[in-house]
Amino acid sequence: MHITELIRFITEDAPAGDITSEILAGGKECRAIITVNEAGIIAGLTESGMLFSHFGAQVVSSRHDGEQVEAETAIMELAGDAAAILLVERTALNIIGRMSGIASTTRKFVDAAHRINPDIRIAATRKTCPGMRLLDKKAVAIGGGEPHRTGLSDMFLIKDNHLALVPLEEAIRKVRVASVYRKIEVEVSTAGDAVRAAAAGADIVMLDNVPPALMKKTLGELESRGLRNNVILEASGGINASNLATYAALDLDVLSLGILTHSVKNMDVSLEVLKGAKSFSL
Amino acid sequence: MHITELIRFITEDAPAGDITSEILAGGKECRAIITVNEAGIIAGLTESGMLFSHFGAQVVSSRHDGEQVEAETAIMELAGDAAAILLVERTALNIIGRMSGIASTTRKFVDAAHRINPDIRIAATRKTCPGMRLLDKKAVAIGGGEPHRTGLSDMFLIKDNHLALVPLEEAIRKVRVASVYRKIEVEVSTAGDAVRAAAAGADIVMLDNVPPALMKKTLGELESRGLRNNVILEASGGINASNLATYAALDLDVLSLGILTHSVKNMDVSLEVLKGAKSFSL
Amino acid sequence: MHITELIRFITEDAPAGDITSEILAGGKECRAIITVNEAGIIAGLTESGMLFSHFGAQVVSSRHDGEQVEAETAIMELAGDAAAILLVERTALNIIGRMSGIASTTRKFVDAAHRINPDIRIAATRKTCPGMRLLDKKAVAIGGGEPHRTGLSDMFLIKDNHLALVPLEEAIRKVRVASVYRKIEVEVSTAGDAVRAAAAGADIVMLDNVPPALMKKTLGELESRGLRNNVILEASGGINASNLATYAALDLDVLSLGILTHSVKNMDVSLEVLKGAKSFSL
Amino acid sequence: MHITELIRFITEDAPAGDITSEILAGGKECRAIITVNEAGIIAGLTESGMLFSHFGAQVVSSRHDGEQVEAETAIMELAGDAAAILLVERTALNIIGRMSGIASTTRKFVDAAHRINPDIRIAATRKTCPGMRLLDKKAVAIGGGEPHRTGLSDMFLIKDNHLALVPLEEAIRKVRVASVYRKIEVEVSTAGDAVRAAAAGADIVMLDNVPPALMKKTLGELESRGLRNNVILEASGGINASNLATYAALDLDVLSLGILTHSVKNMDVSLEVLKGAKSFSL
Amino acid sequence: MHITELIRFITEDAPAGDITSEILAGGKECRAIITVNEAGIIAGLTESGMLFSHFGAQVVSSRHDGEQVEAETAIMELAGDAAAILLVERTALNIIGRMSGIASTTRKFVDAAHRINPDIRIAATRKTCPGMRLLDKKAVAIGGGEPHRTGLSDMFLIKDNHLALVPLEEAIRKVRVASVYRKIEVEVSTAGDAVRAAAAGADIVMLDNVPPALMKKTLGELESRGLRNNVILEASGGINASNLATYAALDLDVLSLGILTHSVKNMDVSLEVLKGAKSFSL
Amino acid sequence: MHITELIRFITEDAPAGDITSEILAGGKECRAIITVNEAGIIAGLTESGMLFSHFGAQVVSSRHDGEQVEAETAIMELAGDAAAILLVERTALNIIGRMSGIASTTRKFVDAAHRINPDIRIAATRKTCPGMRLLDKKAVAIGGGEPHRTGLSDMFLIKDNHLALVPLEEAIRKVRVASVYRKIEVEVSTAGDAVRAAAAGADIVMLDNVPPALMKKTLGELESRGLRNNVILEASGGINASNLATYAALDLDVLSLGILTHSVKNMDVSLEVLKGAKSFSL
Repeated sequence: MHITELIRFITEDAPAGDITSEILAGGKECRAIITVNEAGIIAGLTESGMLFSHFGAQVVSSRHDGEQVEAETAIMELAGDAAAILLVERTALNIIGRMSGIASTTRKFVDAAHRINPDIRIAATRKTCPGMRLLDKKAVAIGGGEPHRTGLSDMFLIKDNHLALVPLEEAIRKVRVASVYRKIEVEVSTAGDAVRAAAAGADIVMLDNVPPALMKKTLGELESRGLRNNVILEASGGINASNLATYAALDLDVLSLGILTHSVKNMDVSLEVLKGAKSFSL
Repeated sequence: MHITELIRFITEDAPAGDITSEILAGGKECRAIITVNEAGIIAGLTESGMLFSHFGAQVVSSRHDGEQVEAETAIMELAGDAAAILLVERTALNIIGRMSGIASTTRKFVDAAHRINPDIRIAATRKTCPGMRLLDKKAVAIGGGEPHRTGLSDMFLIKDNHLALVPLEEAIRKVRVASVYRKIEVEVSTAGDAVRAAAAGADIVMLDNVPPALMKKTLGELESRGLRNNVILEASGGINASNLATYAALDLDVLSLGILTHSVKNMDVSLEVLKGAKSFSL
Repeated sequence: MHITELIRFITEDAPAGDITSEILAGGKECRAIITVNEAGIIAGLTESGMLFSHFGAQVVSSRHDGEQVEAETAIMELAGDAAAILLVERTALNIIGRMSGIASTTRKFVDAAHRINPDIRIAATRKTCPGMRLLDKKAVAIGGGEPHRTGLSDMFLIKDNHLALVPLEEAIRKVRVASVYRKIEVEVSTAGDAVRAAAAGADIVMLDNVPPALMKKTLGELESRGLRNNVILEASGGINASNLATYAALDLDVLSLGILTHSVKNMDVSLEVLKGAKSFSL
Repeated sequence: MHITELIRFITEDAPAGDITSEILAGGKECRAIITVNEAGIIAGLTESGMLFSHFGAQVVSSRHDGEQVEAETAIMELAGDAAAILLVERTALNIIGRMSGIASTTRKFVDAAHRINPDIRIAATRKTCPGMRLLDKKAVAIGGGEPHRTGLSDMFLIKDNHLALVPLEEAIRKVRVASVYRKIEVEVSTAGDAVRAAAAGADIVMLDNVPPALMKKTLGELESRGLRNNVILEASGGINASNLATYAALDLDVLSLGILTHSVKNMDVSLEVLKGAKSFSL
Repeated sequence: MHITELIRFITEDAPAGDITSEILAGGKECRAIITVNEAGIIAGLTESGMLFSHFGAQVVSSRHDGEQVEAETAIMELAGDAAAILLVERTALNIIGRMSGIASTTRKFVDAAHRINPDIRIAATRKTCPGMRLLDKKAVAIGGGEPHRTGLSDMFLIKDNHLALVPLEEAIRKVRVASVYRKIEVEVSTAGDAVRAAAAGADIVMLDNVPPALMKKTLGELESRGLRNNVILEASGGINASNLATYAALDLDVLSLGILTHSVKNMDVSLEVLKGAKSFSL
Repeated sequence: MHITELIRFITEDAPAGDITSEILAGGKECRAIITVNEAGIIAGLTESGMLFSHFGAQVVSSRHDGEQVEAETAIMELAGDAAAILLVERTALNIIGRMSGIASTTRKFVDAAHRINPDIRIAATRKTCPGMRLLDKKAVAIGGGEPHRTGLSDMFLIKDNHLALVPLEEAIRKVRVASVYRKIEVEVSTAGDAVRAAAAGADIVMLDNVPPALMKKTLGELESRGLRNNVILEASGGINASNLATYAALDLDVLSLGILTHSVKNMDVSLEVLKGAKSFSL
């Protein structure tokens, strides 16, 4: 995400400036540290650093996006104009908190799935927070997940609502005519439709809200027709921590989980202005 | 939030258009309904309706923001250009899902707190999702909560990081000199500082991360000095479903909970294009 | 005001560039000084400096916002690309001229009022120039005035037009339910309504277009009911240099003057490119 | 000015909405009238009408930009959503107030000058309020004035600061090489330079801060060399109500006055929500 | 392309309005027709219609994007405010002219190629005009071409400059780890690298600047290794009207031509205001 | 064009980043050179350099806009973050390619015309690519051409469509009343109208689509009435390489050619990442 877009988050928080800090911190220099208060994968340091720098504070040192850290770890040290640091503080913490929360949760799902099936991917959906799509997706990738498509412009995904308007084979044919540079995914909910989609040339078949038993049946039918290896198989709908193992044990390629981004628990992270002038090393 | 800002959410999802729907749904008319799949307080219908209308779809009927609905309730019916409806679909569902999730959670906390103390307020913090601050805050209000300040520009909130730079009494004096049109809140963590803040003229005192027992002590000290009624008392830090009752039982005015907006579970909501042309009434 | 917003002022002046200076000054280095041609309080140096720097000129030295200067004082020295300095020249002078004009006028009203009543505040209104609101308000503060609310989002101000729709007590009750983090001001024009507003819990009562004699009566009624100290009293409407003393002599807290921002006389300020290369010290 | 730019003025006033009116006026219908409280030329009705319409209020009737109206004249009647009308109110009044103030002042100067010299033009400068340039210039035109150049992109104006870098004749030659589609104006302060500029092919010669006596001498020299009719002669610098007649009596083409836009006194204009539902006719 | 982006094209042409038409056409109603002056495929009518409508003119009738029309064909009739029609005129003609030029040229290449090889695709590159990428690509699609990727965000294209930094097989492996939802294309210039790319799992192999004879050799090598059907083969670099037949005769899947968008000849199209009020039918 | 506008071109190409380069080139340093593959006048280096710098790459050395270069000339050397260089690559090449194509073509027309008539100007029209107007016009100037008006805001151009609404003399009178700071051009297609325009005070007369023979006749009529030297004469409409000489031989001032910008052939220019670390000197 470009700096001009990150600045909008500051404008959202301070359309007329940080009225408290301008009075109390204007013209004062300080040092400050950002600390995570729980263990996890950290993310959002790149974006936060860009914001602090833009407003004139110096990023003295910083851990890196994607690192696994323990609770009570200092992840960034800042120095410079106190009013600038305090202006950016909450926005930076919200970015780091949300992205680290997503990255950490993703990593847990990836690790749990890989213990059962080392080749399966854990993918995000488009159920992200409006305004944060790019950073939500980036956080999934930092956590070891598969970001899936960014949005409506980058691949063909023929969903049930499209199939309410156009028959499946015709839909695949039409988008393939339009372009061969994008993959074609079809969302289905029956074994029969999965076979139809694979036979019609879909690159990816999403089995949406299909119970594990029917998933197995679907896999069998695709294999018996020699279609299994032609497609990437994605399971979607209601996958969570309690049923992940069941899905991971199936011969699928991708499990996509809305929960990674539509039910985020921010990592607990805070910024402290140091009273004295003493520095510290990360 | 103004339509020009809502449109940015569509650009985020579809920078080069909805390439699937333009091919499969372009030029087709349809009807569609949005349904919530779990009970709760709905929110985000206003913003979603604005988006559907802007792109040329018609909002045939709609429930209202703030209504309590049961699971499997149709909340909006749309008609018109299928490509427009599908372009906006996910953004609208993300808005409704997140705002309804926040509103429903807020309502639960409000109801739980009011059973113990009918006058206490449940407030949000600035720990919102970047890009969604205004709608996160609006959802809190729709759920019966107190939105607290919108951001850094609307009131004076002297936090621990300010107090690392300026003594408490001086800080209050300085912001009061700047303006009398905004309330002054001071964040403290000891009874002594609460008394100092109240004595120095703070309108609101935020007791941050103060255990209930010390809260009580603090209240006692304020009362004994005749300062209790001069200030609004806000408790903040780690308040959640399991300890809410304890905090609600104290003689406080506001409990502020980051959890309302930093750990949102979206309400499950979906949009279905109707195959036939039959309408339905809400 | 953020640099991206300040840049819009340059785009307004030069949508296709500074066609004269690109031809005549492109690639030339120069020094230039900005001089005020009348005495007053200077403001806008921060914003002007940001613009000159953004376009590649160097601010060699600068006086500070809020300083009282005499006529014919050099307030900023610039060096660098002549085309950049000339591109920004007029926008910078317009910012400095207007902000200094506002700051100087504000200071005069503040001084005049304080000679009579050292505790009274001189406040601005929202009668600012569209596009310059934030800088108009900042200039008032630099001049020692009270900026009042920034706009419609930061406090509750119940005006006569609201009271045409909702009874006074109900209006106060409704906004107080919505939030306790913002002050509530009520605009009234009779002693009776002032008492009603104060009794109903308004934080601030604005006496709008009330003649001084009735102001006195209103103050008396509030005092006799023990309500005077519960509210901040603001007088508004038609206050100007000729009647300021009368209002300042009353026991009021704030006098708000549209004239500070709706009838601005820019300070006379100019920029001169130095022919030789000789520097000068401020 | 396009609607998307006008909307920015609303965002400036209400970044998080009109918090008072949303609570007190939301969902209420009303009628309202805008009234001018002093006589003058009205302007800004077009822009105000665009804003009210955009936010959903109906412009029931309106006077026209450029009309001369008496004090206490209703100039616009509105109907519709009260919250929309109140959201736009202050921005609309600020636009109308400033533009009408500029238009009225311009008309006075135009009339005064024309009584002496019916062919002379009264022109604006670029000393406008940042963010309002286009509307300030439009208001001058509505008042019968000459807007002069819009900004740095539309004509060649060689000022003293350019002449500190490039000799006069060379400067004219260089810009003429660049384009013949734009007029060339040269700012001079001596009779000699006026003659040089005219001789070198300037289309317009601006006599800046030249006392009337020297103006006369300059005119004489131009005439004696047969150059007077080759150029448009503009006088600039310190022209105001008290000395206008002197300048108008000279054989000049244009008098340009910074005072038209850098020292604006807004016209007094107000909006009143009607208590009953009764309409009225303009 | 969304209306808010199309409006920027008007701002580019008229930052301070259409100063001629406001004076000469303001308040006048007229009818106007847009005519193409040469035969071809028309495009850009959708975007032009959106602009005319936005500024208040009525699109009375219009041909459709993608239609083949003869020279001197009326393609759109407009009615309404003459100043609005003239404001949009040139921007609309520039959009229609460029898009129709691209669509018509694309169609010619497609037809020529299909006469030799009915299955081959003619694709665009990213060599588009900055600011017009989306419409350039859309015009290619309207002309029957393949738009290829929109930009850097929608697929993996490993180019020679990437291969200067990372070995081919490693590059493919790395992007495949990142996501399986996007196709992987590799640019190569030798038969050996084509085989390596196909063997390593590339979805698409671009043979860049490879002479036809070597293309044939490459195809042979891919076939002999059973890799031909695993990949889409794209030829790129210097393909034009004179050599198209040679390339089309090879067993390739896609020919990509920069010439479609980097060397556009606009279709000749003009707008005429009708003097009388007589309508006409398309 | 300002950096904030140039950044939009990057957003157009990479709304969600450069997904390939972030993975393959992130964190790698490299050197790269931009080379032109055909002779011509180079342009767009300023804008490209601004973009590379903004994203963190260093412009090690660069030729200058307006230089004539031979084929296979290195025109810019870059160093730094490989991902930044590759992100900007295509946008920079598109800017340089288009601007250099325009500049080179312009230079050819200028040279060809000057061989016949050293005083004649070759001018551009507004038939530019939407989004690139300013750079298209700048490229014409770099090539030695006359940019003509930038757009609808900078001069009065009374076209046939205006004359369908207002008689010629009235049109000239009306715009002259509005402002004397802008030239007035009138488009005519008969000798009679040319005389009328010149007599009525037009500064420039555009003879649109007038065959050379009639041009001569028109010139004669203007001369016989003593009007020739009062106006700049511009010929427009269908002027191209094959008929340029005929037009250049006439006693005209300006030939304007849509072909300069509406039928651009980009200069062939490419960027190569250097495999080793060796530098090279331009």
